[in-house]
Amino acid sequence: MVRAKEATRSALDIDVTVLRLGHRLVRDERISTHIGLVSRAFGARSLVLTGADDHTVDSIRRVRDSWGGEFEVSYVKNWKEFVNKWKGTVVHLTMYGENLDECLNKIRKELGLKERKALLLVVGAEKVPPQIYSEANYNVSVGNQPHSEVAALAVFLDRLFMGGELYSTFVKAKLRIKPSARGKKVEIANED
Amino acid sequence: MVRAKEATRSALDIDVTVLRLGHRLVRDERISTHIGLVSRAFGARSLVLTGADDHTVDSIRRVRDSWGGEFEVSYVKNWKEFVNKWKGTVVHLTMYGENLDECLNKIRKELGLKERKALLLVVGAEKVPPQIYSEANYNVSVGNQPHSEVAALAVFLDRLFMGGELYSTFVKAKLRIKPSARGKKVEIANED
Repeated sequence: MVRAKEATRSALDIDVTVLRLGHRLVRDERISTHIGLVSRAFGARSLVLTGADDHTVDSIRRVRDSWGGEFEVSYVKNWKEFVNKWKGTVVHLTMYGENLDECLNKIRKELGLKERKALLLVVGAEKVPPQIYSEANYNVSVGNQPHSEVAALAVFLDRLFMGGELYSTFVKAKLRIKPSARGKKVEIANED
Repeated sequence: MVRAKEATRSALDIDVTVLRLGHRLVRDERISTHIGLVSRAFGARSLVLTGADDHTVDSIRRVRDSWGGEFEVSYVKNWKEFVNKWKGTVVHLTMYGENLDECLNKIRKELGLKERKALLLVVGAEKVPPQIYSEANYNVSVGNQPHSEVAALAVFLDRLFMGGELYSTFVKAKLRIKPSARGKKVEIANED
């Protein structure tokens, strides 16, 4: 079976999992849903939430089922154990971290030396446990101003995949957009 | 007085105002706050909300007051009148629109011919009034997948300003981050 985003992934050969740290029920539902949809649309393979939230998980899966691809959503109880067991590079996105462009070069070099190019991208909510700063291999800032974890995630993935992720196709899509200058054009996809 | 982001703006000489369409009280508060903070951090000059929401406006102004710059937030009752009166280019970000990179070249060319390089960037909530598709000069997609207006806005501004917006300084900042590999380093800014 052909994987979603095969072109993007094979060009760079990096598997990205996004870990959403500190998700709080109800309060973070919409932002975490945006995090999940951005992860999928910008070329990540899966999202892991800390703590169960069926509503958020269902929202993201519904989008995947209509628009295609094999994006996975799950949750873990113990984020620290999950990070410790990660076989690959761990990047924590934070406004306090080092400059994105400088880090990206280091991260690309490091991943280039590994057989399994697995990147865990940690995205916090308002408060994150302080240990994540030492558990991560890189603390990376997308600008040193307060803004949005959704924006930080999107810009990081856009730079990592060098824009190639944005217009890739998704397998098993039921719906597909026909880009147009005016109005909405949606096609029913029937291939794959 | 020196303007915030002078370097970025003078290099490209584009003034960006973000219009957040369809903001709903309470439900959209957090997402609209993210929209405002991303606008400020990624080099826009102001945010205009459709409909009053003091809570959202206050949140964004509080960030500006601590972290600097001259970002403005306001609201309008009649979005259509506001768009019609806009003297400059109007870009509507939508998943149904034309490819970002193709549009950016056209938008840059168009702005290059104008004395006042004023760009109105329209960012919708879940439902937008259909008229915006014809009112806008360009309907632009940041990928043709459902994801997030926060992400679309960030990536559009990042591409427009070619990354130059991310590490610019803000005048009148009380707080400033010292980027670091581990932990949080915040300085009290005392210049300007």
